[in-house]
Amino acid sequence: MTLEAALKAASAELDRTLDALLPQPAGFHARVQEAMRYAIFAGGKRLRPFLVLECAGLFDAPRERALRVAAAIEALHTYSLVHDDLPAMDDDDLRRGRPTTHKRFDEATAILAGDALLTLAFEILADPATHPSGEVRARLVAELARAGGSEGMIGGQMMDIDAPNQAHGADEVIELQRRKTGALFEFSCRSGAVLAEAGDRDMAALTDYARDLGLAFQIGDDLIDATGDAGTAGKAVGKDEAQGKATLVSLYGVEGARREARRLAARAGEAVATYGEAAARLTALPYFLLDRQG
Amino acid sequence: MTLEAALKAASAELDRTLDALLPQPAGFHARVQEAMRYAIFAGGKRLRPFLVLECAGLFDAPRERALRVAAAIEALHTYSLVHDDLPAMDDDDLRRGRPTTHKRFDEATAILAGDALLTLAFEILADPATHPSGEVRARLVAELARAGGSEGMIGGQMMDIDAPNQAHGADEVIELQRRKTGALFEFSCRSGAVLAEAGDRDMAALTDYARDLGLAFQIGDDLIDATGDAGTAGKAVGKDEAQGKATLVSLYGVEGARREARRLAARAGEAVATYGEAAARLTALPYFLLDRQG
Repeated sequence: MTLEAALKAASAELDRTLDALLPQPAGFHARVQEAMRYAIFAGGKRLRPFLVLECAGLFDAPRERALRVAAAIEALHTYSLVHDDLPAMDDDDLRRGRPTTHKRFDEATAILAGDALLTLAFEILADPATHPSGEVRARLVAELARAGGSEGMIGGQMMDIDAPNQAHGADEVIELQRRKTGALFEFSCRSGAVLAEAGDRDMAALTDYARDLGLAFQIGDDLIDATGDAGTAGKAVGKDEAQGKATLVSLYGVEGARREARRLAARAGEAVATYGEAAARLTALPYFLLDRQG
Repeated sequence: MTLEAALKAASAELDRTLDALLPQPAGFHARVQEAMRYAIFAGGKRLRPFLVLECAGLFDAPRERALRVAAAIEALHTYSLVHDDLPAMDDDDLRRGRPTTHKRFDEATAILAGDALLTLAFEILADPATHPSGEVRARLVAELARAGGSEGMIGGQMMDIDAPNQAHGADEVIELQRRKTGALFEFSCRSGAVLAEAGDRDMAALTDYARDLGLAFQIGDDLIDATGDAGTAGKAVGKDEAQGKATLVSLYGVEGARREARRLAARAGEAVATYGEAAARLTALPYFLLDRQG
């Protein structure tokens, strides 16, 4: 199966899992559950779930378990988008061409739906259906909480909000990205190994892979913002420069950033070279994303 | 120790635990961690933590474990207050006489601080320091996620926001309160038994106790809103009637509601009568709260 076909197949499988795991809207509180579904079934790339499935596959972890972890990470990722889009944060009216959750519903419902998706992520991981071992389930919860918490994704979001007021150099930009997007990429890859109770060496290899992939992905995103047009990008561009935010593109220049992204893509592949053919799609993924990103 | 002294002692102990468990603000993302601390060290009653400690005490569960669970429930409760106070929700400028988190910081920081407190609650529960058994830790996570999720507290909050548009009768008001405040009371009491790996009969007794206590507490709160003055209540009153929300006070009348609260307080005590003297403070608690609430 080509990488693109594998991404599509995983996305369809994940959507069936999410449909089974998200509550069916009912009763006087149905509105928040409708908003949860609206937000999560919005046609995302499902990149983090794909990483869970591919990395779990390296160790032959049962797919139904990996799909539950993939659903949890997507629920958490979706909550972060719902809250980021709020007027008090990025104030976005559209995401992937349709109204953001607070525009389709209202702000209060969007805040609650985000809270509920975050909570659901942990409920899914802690359920015995995710893994027969309580130790493994508790470890997944602990790792996701650290990745998503104030030292991880939320800390990165806080740095990002404050970035226009800071004179960030490359070290700070890399720290920001590693928290904001890197931490969830790391969890996605590591969780596959946690599910299989793999050893420290596997854990370290997947962490290295995730770190390089995440930063390459972020540089690709920044390149779109710096050089793309809104039509092909599918979103507003030029926001970083308008807000005075330092990025690796503003620091390295467009060509320098492209070179750095390619270097990271290659190094990500080296990190998983030990898995041979089983890691072929993981090796191809960073290049695929950079090419799609332009 | 009197009930009041026990409440104070537990509150001081909890604050030391929270101080150790909350991240020390540092780095470019310090602001969100400052907001987490501002929100949680606001002088609350620490009622839910007290329930954890008292119920864990019935089974002689180690106090340092119970304190971690107590800290987790308080982190989750605090996040719900921070988000409820936001302009898009209840739009409150003051809580316990000082600026709400979004007034002291800003809306974006308050949203992120709430998200981070919710995430931290699960991180605390999943940590091996909470209990040596992964099964117990995963069960605590699962129970808290259900209590705080879209079928529990968040569902109740959604019902509450929508309440002025609904002609709720007593059944719906009770359902709303059971979700909005009752679910966390239930978790607080049950978690003490979960920590001690107690049996189904204990779990059922504490669930019954928590349910009656929670509803009695809520009626007390509604009585303040209906009959209190802002000075002694320490907050705005008359909000339910102004918003056209049905409460058990509007449905039963003031005297009827008082009688119902006393009946629930007595029944709560019966639920834990089997524990004898060890449950003396739990038995006294609902009356204590009703008397303080006026």
